[in-house]
Amino acid sequence: MKKINVKTKTRIEMIDVTSEVSRAVKESGVKSGVCVAYVPHTTAGVTVNEHADPAVAEDILDALSEHFPHRRNWRHTEGNADAHIKSSLIAPSITIPVEDGRLTLGTWQGVFFCEFDGPRSRNLYLQILNAE
Amino acid sequence: MKKINVKTKTRIEMIDVTSEVSRAVKESGVKSGVCVAYVPHTTAGVTVNEHADPAVAEDILDALSEHFPHRRNWRHTEGNADAHIKSSLIAPSITIPVEDGRLTLGTWQGVFFCEFDGPRSRNLYLQILNAE
Amino acid sequence: MKKINVKTKTRIEMIDVTSEVSRAVKESGVKSGVCVAYVPHTTAGVTVNEHADPAVAEDILDALSEHFPHRRNWRHTEGNADAHIKSSLIAPSITIPVEDGRLTLGTWQGVFFCEFDGPRSRNLYLQILNAE
Repeated sequence: MKKINVKTKTRIEMIDVTSEVSRAVKESGVKSGVCVAYVPHTTAGVTVNEHADPAVAEDILDALSEHFPHRRNWRHTEGNADAHIKSSLIAPSITIPVEDGRLTLGTWQGVFFCEFDGPRSRNLYLQILNAE
Repeated sequence: MKKINVKTKTRIEMIDVTSEVSRAVKESGVKSGVCVAYVPHTTAGVTVNEHADPAVAEDILDALSEHFPHRRNWRHTEGNADAHIKSSLIAPSITIPVEDGRLTLGTWQGVFFCEFDGPRSRNLYLQILNAE
Repeated sequence: MKKINVKTKTRIEMIDVTSEVSRAVKESGVKSGVCVAYVPHTTAGVTVNEHADPAVAEDILDALSEHFPHRRNWRHTEGNADAHIKSSLIAPSITIPVEDGRLTLGTWQGVFFCEFDGPRSRNLYLQILNAE
């Protein structure tokens, strides 16, 4: 398993980690299989979406915060209940096929580490499995 | 890896692809493992839910559109920001166990390709891994 | 594949199944790979989130029910449309890496079976794959 360190800079942001994940797949030598990206944190997530226009990520974050706002009368008293909710909605793991030694990302797709309670130093785990 | 082509007919719909995914699992010859279904698009997703009553899929789509509506003042100017948001909430990938050569779907479960910005010609990738 | 039985006690709750999933991983003998947890039901899901403070799970459930309420004029006439919606948002499957024979859960992370239409007797399937 490989570990990627991600340093986030604001409370809530989506960080494009496509090149780091692609490099790990290449280094694994796996030609056909899957890459599982996993976030070992309860206030962050991982997703795949458009990385050509940064406005897409901003819209996703705005939409989440509009419905699950930061400051509110949540039961969890650490002030980050919204981040836990966002984490389970986006999910802490995603699985992407690998073919011909590469992630099978579509033309506009990139992999994003989703920070919901930063800034922090975070980890993203990558487990790459062979299909054969 | 196998590719399924899905032709969607309206802007937002859930298309039952259970028989196509089941056939791919059978053809793979894998007896025990998992099937990863992956959408290489940023305005679509894949989920598993009830496919006996079509009203279930309609309720899911209505609920998503109520909270993340199509026409609104989003930052992304292509007019489909809502579709990107729905994609990350439903997620572009799902992993289903395979046992005795078949998907371990529950009685009421079917696999759905979720179109959020159609109609389009779409792909669904299937990577089937052996557990042994 | 292993099956865990989960008896839920109320209509909507998150049940910590971390110890059961961890035991299955240990018993599998897999040292490096992934564990896929899969829910064969259309009104339940599985997620990973904080299991130190039970208020986190309550906030997640409250937030979901606030936006996707139980009693409302849904099309699906069985009275549990909200549970189907919650199931697809949380998702019926999650994939967690296994390393050194253990789930790579972060410090605060636990695995939760999410009941959205209980009480019922439920199943959670675990398929554990080897990375080598």
